[in-house]
Amino acid sequence: VTALEVADDSPFGVDNLPYAVFSTSGRPPRVGVRLGDAVVDLAAALGTDGPDAAFAAPVLNPFMAQGHARWIEVRERITALVADDVPDAAVHAAGDVALHLPFEVADYVDFYASEHHATNLGRLFRPDAEPLTPNWKHMPVGYHGRAGTVVVSGTDIIRPSGQRKDTADAAPTFGPSTRLDIEAELGFVVGVGTPRGAPIPVDALADHVFGAVLVNDWSARDLQAWEYVPLGPHLGKSFATSVSPWVVPLLALEAARIPLPCQDDPRPLPYLRASAPWGLDIDLTVEWNGEVVSRPPYREMYWSPAQMLAHMTANGASARTGDLFASGTVSGPAKNQQGSLIELTRGGREPITVNGEQRTFLLDGDTVALTGTAPGAAGGRIGFGEVRGRIRPAP
Amino acid sequence: VTALEVADDSPFGVDNLPYAVFSTSGRPPRVGVRLGDAVVDLAAALGTDGPDAAFAAPVLNPFMAQGHARWIEVRERITALVADDVPDAAVHAAGDVALHLPFEVADYVDFYASEHHATNLGRLFRPDAEPLTPNWKHMPVGYHGRAGTVVVSGTDIIRPSGQRKDTADAAPTFGPSTRLDIEAELGFVVGVGTPRGAPIPVDALADHVFGAVLVNDWSARDLQAWEYVPLGPHLGKSFATSVSPWVVPLLALEAARIPLPCQDDPRPLPYLRASAPWGLDIDLTVEWNGEVVSRPPYREMYWSPAQMLAHMTANGASARTGDLFASGTVSGPAKNQQGSLIELTRGGREPITVNGEQRTFLLDGDTVALTGTAPGAAGGRIGFGEVRGRIRPAP
Repeated sequence: VTALEVADDSPFGVDNLPYAVFSTSGRPPRVGVRLGDAVVDLAAALGTDGPDAAFAAPVLNPFMAQGHARWIEVRERITALVADDVPDAAVHAAGDVALHLPFEVADYVDFYASEHHATNLGRLFRPDAEPLTPNWKHMPVGYHGRAGTVVVSGTDIIRPSGQRKDTADAAPTFGPSTRLDIEAELGFVVGVGTPRGAPIPVDALADHVFGAVLVNDWSARDLQAWEYVPLGPHLGKSFATSVSPWVVPLLALEAARIPLPCQDDPRPLPYLRASAPWGLDIDLTVEWNGEVVSRPPYREMYWSPAQMLAHMTANGASARTGDLFASGTVSGPAKNQQGSLIELTRGGREPITVNGEQRTFLLDGDTVALTGTAPGAAGGRIGFGEVRGRIRPAP
Repeated sequence: VTALEVADDSPFGVDNLPYAVFSTSGRPPRVGVRLGDAVVDLAAALGTDGPDAAFAAPVLNPFMAQGHARWIEVRERITALVADDVPDAAVHAAGDVALHLPFEVADYVDFYASEHHATNLGRLFRPDAEPLTPNWKHMPVGYHGRAGTVVVSGTDIIRPSGQRKDTADAAPTFGPSTRLDIEAELGFVVGVGTPRGAPIPVDALADHVFGAVLVNDWSARDLQAWEYVPLGPHLGKSFATSVSPWVVPLLALEAARIPLPCQDDPRPLPYLRASAPWGLDIDLTVEWNGEVVSRPPYREMYWSPAQMLAHMTANGASARTGDLFASGTVSGPAKNQQGSLIELTRGGREPITVNGEQRTFLLDGDTVALTGTAPGAAGGRIGFGEVRGRIRPAP
């Protein structure tokens, strides 16, 4: 048996306990929980009797589907377990395990919930119009992305090809994207779904959302600009979306709750008004080839996760275990707080310095890693780990 | 044993043989094939050894994933089987079985491939601009829909609520949609997917697409008009999409192939140029409360299914078994060939007569059924059956 030691400043203390799906050589993927530098195999530590059989699944979906009371119960059992000695067979060094896509993605919806980002993008994509569309402050605008191309951190990103047309070009051409970008986002994972015709009230988020992940919604800006009117982004986004392997339980983020920005002009419609609204005080970082180029503050987001979920189901759309909804790019008011390269470089017109080089969009071989931390219940900061991807050349 | 009799004019002759997932009382859903008025239980008729175990699955996905050579082999075995006597236990009257969602939907992409429809909608949604956006003739424009709300024919459609704002209104309001519409479409089901980074060439459709279904992409036009700029349709569509229970194999549609409309102005980019391009000569009908109000001709579609699939994966997006991509509304040049009520009623300004009543959009209790037929290899016409839905009031 092992007494798990956790450094005081570890982002994976007992107030975090994020879940992942991991594997060790020769054994199938199963559910693990992170504590310090260790991964605890839940099937080995807690058994697989009855509902605990979910710990032996190769995705978190069965456990997430068990609901809020069960999420609390398991968190309490894990807290008790790691306070004591853990069986050796259940403990792995975090560096020794492979981490897998933590959940089977049902539907993926991406929102656009940062006023700073929406304003910046509006100026770049529609320079002759008001940057915020008239609907933007009335609803969390969003669209469906491709669930089948959500990949786990560490998966290489193959540069997409597609149609692009500069305003000066007479006709579009086809080829590898020359404006490959990132979007630093936070994603929320639905554990308990709903049938059609039963919208999720804005106050019911905690009954449905299991946890949060970091999301990099890779974007080919040249493809996106040419395709997106009138039906929205499609191939400019659908080639890959990366998520972090560790799902931070919503239960661990209670200490990170903060008030939302003022929503008085206009006031949202009643279905978007929470009785006790909250945002999240999460600090993101964007590392480009190892150099931090931006620190997007999630606390600046206009629309809350609860508002996104309420809006997504307000029309009676059902929700399913494994639904992923992401915030859209997190950008703060300052330039070094923007979550996409198109914002950081003003549409590619103002390069930034990365490792001494002047850079605009991603080149083959570049690596981007997003990290995130939040206040934890123990007074320090809890971590999301990272979501990382390296650009491979177009085939 | 039963010798299956099929009327000469049956839409379900031996040149069709569409697949469904059906159940009879007390027995789990399994794969069936339609012949005349009978449903043949494939697990009972052909057994469940080896790859035939796929016939006992509650969805077509395992069978569809087995690939083109296998689809041909099974079709030949079924043809031989039904030419002879079929075991009684494998035969059910079509009216005695329940039909289920035939496949587990992976990702759902909806295109916009009818020039007539895109022009009509452009005029209605953007009256001050060119109706066709500049990209329209260069690519099959499309977007992701909600896979989790794809339902089988016969499922009631609950009227969605949402935000809507007339141009005359100072602010949006929330409530049941007052402009609930249909979209008559054809959908294509992917059997064999591809990994990321391996686009499907425009000439490779037959290796990947298993078959076709009728699709009714229910649309709340008031929600859609207010939400869709800049990220495209979302809640105006995501509440429900109905598909027909019978999946007509692509192998049965070879006799329905026709030339595509001229694509010379502009000529598509090379990745969208098939070596032997074809469209499909499929006649759709739209029945509103039992009265045929439109006959959309699929032969008028500008972009082909092969072009849609090639475009959807051109950026390296992977495809999965169960991916559904639909054509978008099928509309012909004549008014009685339009596949949506917003077109048939000129945005609701010109009611049409249905059962003696003047009607624009759908009322609670209305039923819409779409049907489709195509030339079959035997010289007659093969049928898609129908996709039907009835409107229930908002909760």
